Amino acid sequence: MDSDFDTTLPLPTLDHAARRQHVQAALDAKTKPLGALGRLESLAVQLAVALGTDQPALFAPQLVVFAADHGIAARGVSAYPAEVTRQMVLNFLTGGAAVSVLARQHGLALTVADCGVAAEFEAHPMLVRLKTAGAEHGTADASRGPAMSEAQCRTAILQGRRLVAALPGNVLLLGEMGIGNTSAAALLMARLTGAPLQVCTGRGTGLDDAGLAAKRAVLAEALEANAQATRPLQALAALGGLEIATMVGAVQQAAVSGRVIVVDGFITTAAVAVAAALQPAVLAHCVFAHRSQETGHTHWLQRLGVQPLLDLDLRLGEGSGAALAWPLLDSACRVLAEMASFASAGVSQRTP
Amino acid sequence: MDSDFDTTLPLPTLDHAARRQHVQAALDAKTKPLGALGRLESLAVQLAVALGTDQPALFAPQLVVFAADHGIAARGVSAYPAEVTRQMVLNFLTGGAAVSVLARQHGLALTVADCGVAAEFEAHPMLVRLKTAGAEHGTADASRGPAMSEAQCRTAILQGRRLVAALPGNVLLLGEMGIGNTSAAALLMARLTGAPLQVCTGRGTGLDDAGLAAKRAVLAEALEANAQATRPLQALAALGGLEIATMVGAVQQAAVSGRVIVVDGFITTAAVAVAAALQPAVLAHCVFAHRSQETGHTHWLQRLGVQPLLDLDLRLGEGSGAALAWPLLDSACRVLAEMASFASAGVSQRTP
Repeated sequence: MDSDFDTTLPLPTLDHAARRQHVQAALDAKTKPLGALGRLESLAVQLAVALGTDQPALFAPQLVVFAADHGIAARGVSAYPAEVTRQMVLNFLTGGAAVSVLARQHGLALTVADCGVAAEFEAHPMLVRLKTAGAEHGTADASRGPAMSEAQCRTAILQGRRLVAALPGNVLLLGEMGIGNTSAAALLMARLTGAPLQVCTGRGTGLDDAGLAAKRAVLAEALEANAQATRPLQALAALGGLEIATMVGAVQQAAVSGRVIVVDGFITTAAVAVAAALQPAVLAHCVFAHRSQETGHTHWLQRLGVQPLLDLDLRLGEGSGAALAWPLLDSACRVLAEMASFASAGVSQRTP
Repeated sequence: MDSDFDTTLPLPTLDHAARRQHVQAALDAKTKPLGALGRLESLAVQLAVALGTDQPALFAPQLVVFAADHGIAARGVSAYPAEVTRQMVLNFLTGGAAVSVLARQHGLALTVADCGVAAEFEAHPMLVRLKTAGAEHGTADASRGPAMSEAQCRTAILQGRRLVAALPGNVLLLGEMGIGNTSAAALLMARLTGAPLQVCTGRGTGLDDAGLAAKRAVLAEALEANAQATRPLQALAALGGLEIATMVGAVQQAAVSGRVIVVDGFITTAAVAVAAALQPAVLAHCVFAHRSQETGHTHWLQRLGVQPLLDLDLRLGEGSGAALAWPLLDSACRVLAEMASFASAGVSQRTP
């Protein structure tokens, strides 16, 4: 990496212990048995810490779908043809995708970032062009060598940072689209965690047993072809994808600007894992929306020491799981802000 | 029971197989990999079946908090004094309870049904008086004999039916409030399922180990004192509560009028279990919102053969879990109604 590129951004100091204690005390005074709202209470505490306030309130939530194509898709690692990346971007823009429906339902502003889709799109108010020079139409085939150069990877990260810096609100919901990107995420998981490909590699959009075995064989080639890429940013460049690299920058910028980050499934977890490998403190900003059905996600969440909110056998990506979890974040803040206390409501405390 | 009281209501015939197939086919044509929306897809299918339409849409959702007091509370089975039932009813009416906050967030109409709270309330637009003659201020102590007479139980059921018949909308969300009612629910679970009190009895609003042991001992007395109450409605009268009996009627009426029923935690599950013991077909209408932290709920859900949507360590009741799950039901319908198909969006199908 060039010396003028900061691999991490200076995160604000979050006053964890004092704030946690203060917000939990406020929750304990609410008209409910101690701890009776379970994970919603710990979520409220986390949001307070992440936003740096005892009275967290979420506004102008931004769901960004980071889209790009993957050279490795040519090796047949997906059940769908690569052209689906382009087609789904158009589907996002016309409002017909799952994440389009869910974003409308919950009032989430939806942006599609073209981080390297193998197409040129007409201008659209929801579309941001974040293509990287030399990789405008996607990465190279990681099974034959690095997916990106380190310079391209750095550019993608910087673009992710700039994108988030320009977005309003205090919540970033991560989504992604890219045929082949469960392969990129599995490769990153294998390299970052050391877990075997058997654990990291799943069926993606729906491979059968033969397809899954073939995918694992191609991913083994990719690990071999990029054996020297061991540090997080080297691994990201060699094995990742343009949408993943852009998300790494987006995660860093969201954390440094004190936002909440809602992580979707397996691929967005890959981006967070890279950012966390560089700077573990980003995790304090991350709410993990759901446990994906994709093989490896459960293991990776455990490795990161985090627990997702939903467990609904989802495996779609796009940010659909993040959008489904969104009302829970809103509920956590509202409960803290709006519930009466035992004192204010004149409700008796527990029997001594 | 009197011969003029129908213990069940005539449920509409739901054309399960054909409708399931039709709706799943519609979901399979949407722009996503087959099955990629997981539980949201099976939820959409269930809602279609329950509502009797291939195009389910939810409108005017009604959250009813059924409240009553329990004679057994005098035996010290709760961590909170019995007066909290009355105080929490007032808290619901003034908008300070958790369920008040969540109902506001999601636009759920909130009604509080006084099924036998040990108080008389001033008239309030959100409050419905459903007291039963002779049990206006709650049940008798089930550890000494029947909690209700069978006539009182029947009256409560009829009032629940009438209440729901008068409510608009096609969704009923169940909530409850009543100090002592995890005891009543545990007793019903023990009697209906045959599971030991060790499995059925939990900490409720937060008993410590000694309190839990004492609660189990009192519940054992109650089972003994009502050993003859073996059939579902006998058990409901002898061991249940006025809010639970009213909910049984509400569940029956909601099912017979083709509505969706959103079941909250342990106590609302008790009401559904009684209704299902009388008429298993009511379960087709029930969406189980969450797995409560209350001991016994997981076991009871398994016995009923159902899987809850959320698992957030909640143990509050009030309908708070039902309200938190509500957006998922809405999402399921919207995905089915609004997502583009592969054909309409011009997205390629999977590689043959």
